[in-house]
Amino acid sequence: MTLIDVFTTGGTIDKVYFDALSEFHVGPTTLSDILAENNVYAQHRVTQLMRKDSLELTAEDRAAIYDAVMASEAEHILITHGTDTMVETGKKLAGIKNKTIVLTGSLQPARIKNSDAAFNVGFAFAAVQTLPHGVYVAMNGQIFDPAITRKDREAGRFVENP
Amino acid sequence: MTLIDVFTTGGTIDKVYFDALSEFHVGPTTLSDILAENNVYAQHRVTQLMRKDSLELTAEDRAAIYDAVMASEAEHILITHGTDTMVETGKKLAGIKNKTIVLTGSLQPARIKNSDAAFNVGFAFAAVQTLPHGVYVAMNGQIFDPAITRKDREAGRFVENP
Amino acid sequence: MTLIDVFTTGGTIDKVYFDALSEFHVGPTTLSDILAENNVYAQHRVTQLMRKDSLELTAEDRAAIYDAVMASEAEHILITHGTDTMVETGKKLAGIKNKTIVLTGSLQPARIKNSDAAFNVGFAFAAVQTLPHGVYVAMNGQIFDPAITRKDREAGRFVENP
Amino acid sequence: MTLIDVFTTGGTIDKVYFDALSEFHVGPTTLSDILAENNVYAQHRVTQLMRKDSLELTAEDRAAIYDAVMASEAEHILITHGTDTMVETGKKLAGIKNKTIVLTGSLQPARIKNSDAAFNVGFAFAAVQTLPHGVYVAMNGQIFDPAITRKDREAGRFVENP
Repeated sequence: MTLIDVFTTGGTIDKVYFDALSEFHVGPTTLSDILAENNVYAQHRVTQLMRKDSLELTAEDRAAIYDAVMASEAEHILITHGTDTMVETGKKLAGIKNKTIVLTGSLQPARIKNSDAAFNVGFAFAAVQTLPHGVYVAMNGQIFDPAITRKDREAGRFVENP
Repeated sequence: MTLIDVFTTGGTIDKVYFDALSEFHVGPTTLSDILAENNVYAQHRVTQLMRKDSLELTAEDRAAIYDAVMASEAEHILITHGTDTMVETGKKLAGIKNKTIVLTGSLQPARIKNSDAAFNVGFAFAAVQTLPHGVYVAMNGQIFDPAITRKDREAGRFVENP
Repeated sequence: MTLIDVFTTGGTIDKVYFDALSEFHVGPTTLSDILAENNVYAQHRVTQLMRKDSLELTAEDRAAIYDAVMASEAEHILITHGTDTMVETGKKLAGIKNKTIVLTGSLQPARIKNSDAAFNVGFAFAAVQTLPHGVYVAMNGQIFDPAITRKDREAGRFVENP
Repeated sequence: MTLIDVFTTGGTIDKVYFDALSEFHVGPTTLSDILAENNVYAQHRVTQLMRKDSLELTAEDRAAIYDAVMASEAEHILITHGTDTMVETGKKLAGIKNKTIVLTGSLQPARIKNSDAAFNVGFAFAAVQTLPHGVYVAMNGQIFDPAITRKDREAGRFVENP
């Protein structure tokens, strides 16, 4: 069986509401819960690399993500990430050989009713097993090449550059 | 953009609770809701073929599913189906050429909290876009060949035959 | 602090979907989960008396409910119950003195998205603390006297007899 | 039938996540949805007075809440409110005669899975129909007198002052 190595970096998908602060923060990753609740039997390992809004990710953070991917023995790498700079991280990883790397996230926190988190993780979880080597953004039920993609914040979706 | 043709046949994924009957029945398909709520922009069309528990599907029903797939101009066919005889329907479709056909469903109705429906539909929605031509069962975060697969009811999962 | 004694008898509120049977059955009571998830600090005790659809309750079952209420030292008794014969059980309990007894349930299982279970339990949980001694049905955001009430199955609501 | 006049002021119960801002804000009130989804037949009217985090409520806002309650012809007044200053607003309303006024809210937004919103609204909805005239805070499955109550932020609950 093939190992799927899941790295979590934070982003909206992992946001929780802290009443004591009256604020919403990135919490512990929801990925293990999502994979368990959905009865996933594919071999996988979940590693929380960081817990950040993707607007706050630094060059050092991206280097840490890059290093984690390079250090993994797995051919199939799934990364959960805030949507605002997901494309930027995808570009940073573009040179990595011999791996299928898929980035996903969600526009609504996993803990919100009707969140897109479970669908998106499911979508990315198939994409990472079936796509050829390379780096991909898996959002909105579509596969994107980060080199030619951007997030359209107003529309709440990813689109290819014109 | 590629059209994904979604055919729904019923099954647990579409079950709803009818208080007036104190019973659970296959209701109108949830697929359009699932795809809308999850902000899917891939081109798709949802056709409800039937609303049946898969244990009740007849040879005529399977012939109707076969005919619907053959009649579709789409290369990418997603079928939602009860899990108990999903493999049987997969085998029936096995001879169809030049299409990627993916069957999925869920072990818990989509309208149940923590249902596996959204994840599974997301998973299948990527699989149908990325896999080579052929017929596949997409469940438990894994891709199965219906020719060598069965549902293990006690374990609540699909497994390859020994 | 006042003890609220919660007795569960089954009914739709506790129904769960069993994939291995392709059927919906009354499962272990959801009341403890509901009270815990909703951060309830009022003193309470949850006792599962039986796990039955209320159409299947026998005279013996109603006698057991009656005996449990009589044996309780608590003044405040909350009973969760299937809606179809909730009024009948209420009538059976009508003679009990010196206690406030409130029956509630739900039209959709607690584990269904958008179920009325949490609201109804919250509603009944206040009613049992605030109403004078007597027996009440608490459904649809209203307090009913079981002596003059019936369930309108088609409308999915409780109404007073004309 | 008795009219229940519901005034909403904002607070956590009505918070929604706005992806375009990567922030959580008080959205349109959820009260009408909560009452509709829970199949409430008691006569009620929902008026959104303001959409504010309760830490941002000013003396003018509290005067507006006071005036709305005074202007209502209803004897039963339910107010949804942020939890941080719910007690303060309760004290402001304390002098009002001939009405039962109940304040409630939630520690988790109504749109979060497992939110306490539906339970709390149900609880308050019974309290406002059954309690004698006066002003009450209905939270944590308990009825509090605002004159002697405070929110314990660390514990995430309301408690009586020692």
